[in-house]
Amino acid sequence: MASTLKRVSIVGSGNWGSTIAKIVGTNVLSNPKFDQKVKMYVYEEIVDGRKLTEIINTQHENIKYLPGHKLPENVVAVPDVVEVAHDADIIIFVLPHQFMANTCKPLMGKLKSDAFGVSLCKGFYIADDGKIDLISNMVRNLLKIECLVVMGANIAGEVAAGQFCEATIGSRNREQGLLLKEVLQTDFFRIVVRHDVEVVEACGALKNIVALGAGFCDGLNYGDNTKAAVIRLGLMEVMKFCDIFYKSSEHRTFFESCGVADLVTTCYGGRNRRVAEAFARALGEKTIDELEKELLNGQKVQGPEAAREVNIMLKAHNYENDFPLLTSIYKICVREIPVTQLIDNLRNHPEHL
Amino acid sequence: MASTLKRVSIVGSGNWGSTIAKIVGTNVLSNPKFDQKVKMYVYEEIVDGRKLTEIINTQHENIKYLPGHKLPENVVAVPDVVEVAHDADIIIFVLPHQFMANTCKPLMGKLKSDAFGVSLCKGFYIADDGKIDLISNMVRNLLKIECLVVMGANIAGEVAAGQFCEATIGSRNREQGLLLKEVLQTDFFRIVVRHDVEVVEACGALKNIVALGAGFCDGLNYGDNTKAAVIRLGLMEVMKFCDIFYKSSEHRTFFESCGVADLVTTCYGGRNRRVAEAFARALGEKTIDELEKELLNGQKVQGPEAAREVNIMLKAHNYENDFPLLTSIYKICVREIPVTQLIDNLRNHPEHL
Repeated sequence: MASTLKRVSIVGSGNWGSTIAKIVGTNVLSNPKFDQKVKMYVYEEIVDGRKLTEIINTQHENIKYLPGHKLPENVVAVPDVVEVAHDADIIIFVLPHQFMANTCKPLMGKLKSDAFGVSLCKGFYIADDGKIDLISNMVRNLLKIECLVVMGANIAGEVAAGQFCEATIGSRNREQGLLLKEVLQTDFFRIVVRHDVEVVEACGALKNIVALGAGFCDGLNYGDNTKAAVIRLGLMEVMKFCDIFYKSSEHRTFFESCGVADLVTTCYGGRNRRVAEAFARALGEKTIDELEKELLNGQKVQGPEAAREVNIMLKAHNYENDFPLLTSIYKICVREIPVTQLIDNLRNHPEHL
Repeated sequence: MASTLKRVSIVGSGNWGSTIAKIVGTNVLSNPKFDQKVKMYVYEEIVDGRKLTEIINTQHENIKYLPGHKLPENVVAVPDVVEVAHDADIIIFVLPHQFMANTCKPLMGKLKSDAFGVSLCKGFYIADDGKIDLISNMVRNLLKIECLVVMGANIAGEVAAGQFCEATIGSRNREQGLLLKEVLQTDFFRIVVRHDVEVVEACGALKNIVALGAGFCDGLNYGDNTKAAVIRLGLMEVMKFCDIFYKSSEHRTFFESCGVADLVTTCYGGRNRRVAEAFARALGEKTIDELEKELLNGQKVQGPEAAREVNIMLKAHNYENDFPLLTSIYKICVREIPVTQLIDNLRNHPEHL
């Protein structure tokens, strides 16, 4: 009978991964559809003289990346990603997107044929041929399994603390989406399932670019109206981008947590906004790289890289003029135009014609 | 030939009205479709020992409500509303919504039959039969003319200063909407015309209720995720409200400046948010009325009254349970439930089923 129980595994154990492990580990205990053991892939490292996997498996706490939160004892840290994923039915990938390809490669050909993946990674992926693609497509292509996504306005620390919030599952297959909802939803982590997985995922990557625009407004001391206009024009360009590149047919998904909610939170808080504000205040005297080092203590902002990747796509299809905000933000980041030109480039936005 | 020129008049001269007068007065000068004289109705009062109309007509500045900004000399202040409106083709109403009915009544039967009105008033109107209606419907019913609306993320001072922003025109008649766009659009005040006038207008009234919810989150020290969820659920309920009461058929309008942009600006800045935050921090020891007096120096918050009006509509149609956020905000305002119950009332929101 054990084989009919669905096994959920988690690949990644940073602060978002550990938060998800806490939720998943708790949920499977009370749901008879699922195997109670949840394996979590932990990139092995030594913390205070002990292996991190050992610490997690004895103290039931990821003391390095999510200190102060107990993990359920049925969450088992494992340092071998194949061991974690090979017998799983649902494999949740939650790690920085730049590590995804190398983490997936050892899993090629090793997974159950009816397993499905779930990506919580925000960002694009540059394929070997130089093409920009979504992380979920990389998983599909490399591992030959379907891949769902989960995006939303979810700061890990707040979710771990049980603060009420929402997230969006993107799943082409309704049944898989609803099964994943059972794995993730709690009374404080509320989930909506949408079918257009590419839109859900693209929102998560594109919002960081718009947040740079919002930060530029703050750094230039523009008022609330101007910032609201920049955020809204950003949303319009995100929607148009999805219409063109991902053939999104309906706009409802942009109203979900992955859309407006995550966008707005990122544009009012968040690292990208902060670095962009400092960049505008420096008026060309500092690069984004310099400010990142100065302000973020080793953390990275993803907006400038996403802006570059999106610009490659827009340029390749001769769409730069149709996306004046995304194009201007890219050009400001690489100092091709001064930040003070941002608004002038929006005065004849296609939205207002 | 003069009679073929369109005459634009403005009813109202507060800080938003004066800002609009500045824009309209400038635009008609360079557009051969329009009569260059713009009459502006000014409620006569004595300022520094002189009539306000005289001050405006000699100094070309509304020193009381928009000090520091010159009005174009073709804007003429007139203390008689009938004189202002009787020969106008476009009558722009821009005054606090509670003054609309009494300002319109003298105009009944006095207007050109093919004139149209434009309402910039945010809020509902309680008809004599106790029914809640939109201001534009009151104009239609009282004055027997079509009524357009203009809404958006538009703080008057920022618009008067020429800061870049957007607004939404709602107009059933496309030709009238585009004509109004010519009257209002400048290189910093960018306009989109939408056909579903009731939705455009309802957004402007309902956002203040959602902003109370956002303020409660701030006052209860909830994080960014929770606030984002409350704002998003607010947007969902605004959309559902428009679907039910105004038969809105498409959701595109909610992405306009009148929708997400105005909502978000109001939920992060704005008076309603501020008073609601203070209300939550006082944990039931002070009423909204008391805090309004304490914090706003005579200004009013419109959210609590709008929440009450909306609740009358929801209750009358047995919809309270379908709108848990709007209903809870109303009940918190009248202290029927404690503010700390807000989130518990959202845990089974219809959006998450």
